[in-house]
Amino acid sequence: MKALEWTGDSLKILDQTKLPIEISYRNATTYKEVAEAIEKMEVRGAPAIGAAAAYGYALGALGYPGDREGLQAYMDGVQDRLSETRPTAVNLFWALRRMEDRLRELHETTDLNEIRQRLLQEAENIAEDDRRVNRLIGDTGNAIVPDEANILTHCNAGALATVEFGTALGVIRAAHQGGKKIHVYADETRPFLQGARLTAFELMNDSIPVTLIADNMAGFLMQQGKIDLVIVGADRIAANGDTANKIGTYSLAVLAQAHGIPFYIAAPTSTIDLKVAGGQEIPIEERNPNELREVFGIQTAPADVPVYNPAFDVTPAKLITGIITEKGIVSSPYSVNLLKIMVRS
Amino acid sequence: MKALEWTGDSLKILDQTKLPIEISYRNATTYKEVAEAIEKMEVRGAPAIGAAAAYGYALGALGYPGDREGLQAYMDGVQDRLSETRPTAVNLFWALRRMEDRLRELHETTDLNEIRQRLLQEAENIAEDDRRVNRLIGDTGNAIVPDEANILTHCNAGALATVEFGTALGVIRAAHQGGKKIHVYADETRPFLQGARLTAFELMNDSIPVTLIADNMAGFLMQQGKIDLVIVGADRIAANGDTANKIGTYSLAVLAQAHGIPFYIAAPTSTIDLKVAGGQEIPIEERNPNELREVFGIQTAPADVPVYNPAFDVTPAKLITGIITEKGIVSSPYSVNLLKIMVRS
Repeated sequence: MKALEWTGDSLKILDQTKLPIEISYRNATTYKEVAEAIEKMEVRGAPAIGAAAAYGYALGALGYPGDREGLQAYMDGVQDRLSETRPTAVNLFWALRRMEDRLRELHETTDLNEIRQRLLQEAENIAEDDRRVNRLIGDTGNAIVPDEANILTHCNAGALATVEFGTALGVIRAAHQGGKKIHVYADETRPFLQGARLTAFELMNDSIPVTLIADNMAGFLMQQGKIDLVIVGADRIAANGDTANKIGTYSLAVLAQAHGIPFYIAAPTSTIDLKVAGGQEIPIEERNPNELREVFGIQTAPADVPVYNPAFDVTPAKLITGIITEKGIVSSPYSVNLLKIMVRS
Repeated sequence: MKALEWTGDSLKILDQTKLPIEISYRNATTYKEVAEAIEKMEVRGAPAIGAAAAYGYALGALGYPGDREGLQAYMDGVQDRLSETRPTAVNLFWALRRMEDRLRELHETTDLNEIRQRLLQEAENIAEDDRRVNRLIGDTGNAIVPDEANILTHCNAGALATVEFGTALGVIRAAHQGGKKIHVYADETRPFLQGARLTAFELMNDSIPVTLIADNMAGFLMQQGKIDLVIVGADRIAANGDTANKIGTYSLAVLAQAHGIPFYIAAPTSTIDLKVAGGQEIPIEERNPNELREVFGIQTAPADVPVYNPAFDVTPAKLITGIITEKGIVSSPYSVNLLKIMVRS
């Protein structure tokens, strides 16, 4: 089961809002549909959002009705629409910039169909890179996983959050496939329940032992010595190592430190944003209050209760044991070491 | 709206599992119905469970069909049934012991109806004591609440968790009624959603400003300086001050300490169990895994995912700034000061 797949003329998007109860797809044939799927979190997870946006950009070019002269202005509009879907995950902007750069390189090309094919190829490259990078993250991260380990993860940084294999769950998958005795605690990750709906589902499909807990149980598990390691994904990593990830990550990092438990981020280098100096500069998306007043449309709180619903939080670098990337594991001092890894080919 | 009310011949129990969507009651006319209501969490919250069990015991005597000779053995059975409903909150056992003591004091009384009336009177006394005690907790606790404060609370330690007024919410109510500018963050408290369903509802009814958050947002709020104070209830307090309360309380206590935020417990002295030396001796109830696989009967996770569902955790005394009781605020060293307050009349 894949989060997204190019069919030849459309992007087939698994609707993750309905998992695991219903397996349904959206066949997006326009960039607007892709933008809507990202906004509604039908496709989510920083690397998957990046790849989906790249295909969305290509669909924009494929559907462009005008002549060569008007293409750039039209594609700027496509890019704007895709950019405004979600503010925190930087992979979205990274992928769109890569597509934009490719288009600008083609400024002397007058054949619209050639441009369209080149942009589609670039989207395919982005997706293929993500597949490769996730495998590398898995192999790299496997080094820090003990032969037997109870691992806590948050949200879903799995195959469903990427094009394939996953980041945090990629490390877990690689360790499991390598014969290590891994057991995962997945916390359900309110309000969107990515842990309950996606991570539990994905790990069960791969026969990796998993136990579901509520978000508020993590501390109690740590107190009882039931967690050896925490691995989560990332939506944006600042130049100093501060990391934005799904709301609740920061609490887990504080709890892990209080219990002396290693706390790792697993993410591709496309998640690292050197233009952002520190976590306080990362924009934090706030989502619809109804996400906390309802579950699957069923009311769970007073209908008019005021709600605070940030989708992400920022974990300061000092709480992070290491950042697992496709180019190796980065550790403190992050300001120096993130820069080093970004210039390494 | 009251959690429980004696009607003259039955115990009217507000079914809190359906709040705030539906306001419905169970009219319990037998001790078995009261036991069932406690088990199913239709009535919940340590002090309310204690009072409900006392009325259940009285209903046992009122419904006793035999003669004086067989009464004690019958009531032992009633007590056993009520005792086995929930293991963690000590107020249940405290109230039942008080009823049992009262029955034993009447060993020379041969008039069954007099015994029944005396037992009913004792249940009324327990309920009346709880009303009085909660007001005192509110007044006492008000002393530690700043004139303006953002207060985080967990689960529901409100009027709905007691006979009236509440413990943690009693303190908040007293501060609000005293003219302080109070704003409450209520975390939703998975899996049973007492924060979303009960605390938000109760505070809105009293026009006390409240904002609902997911459990995993508490750390992020603290990081942003949005929390001045944490106040929660308790289900059992050990002789050394270790406190069992709703799952998630321990995580909040660790987070509060990491951010230098005062962390208070509010509870009647009937919650203090000097027979239990430390938290590791407090039995922790584990509940049905389906509570984490479903919300209001709607599936939210793979139907067969393994689940860990402890209903409580234990916060070590060292993380607790103070315990607000009807006899005053107890602080460290708890082993000495809890003993002192228990012998004080």
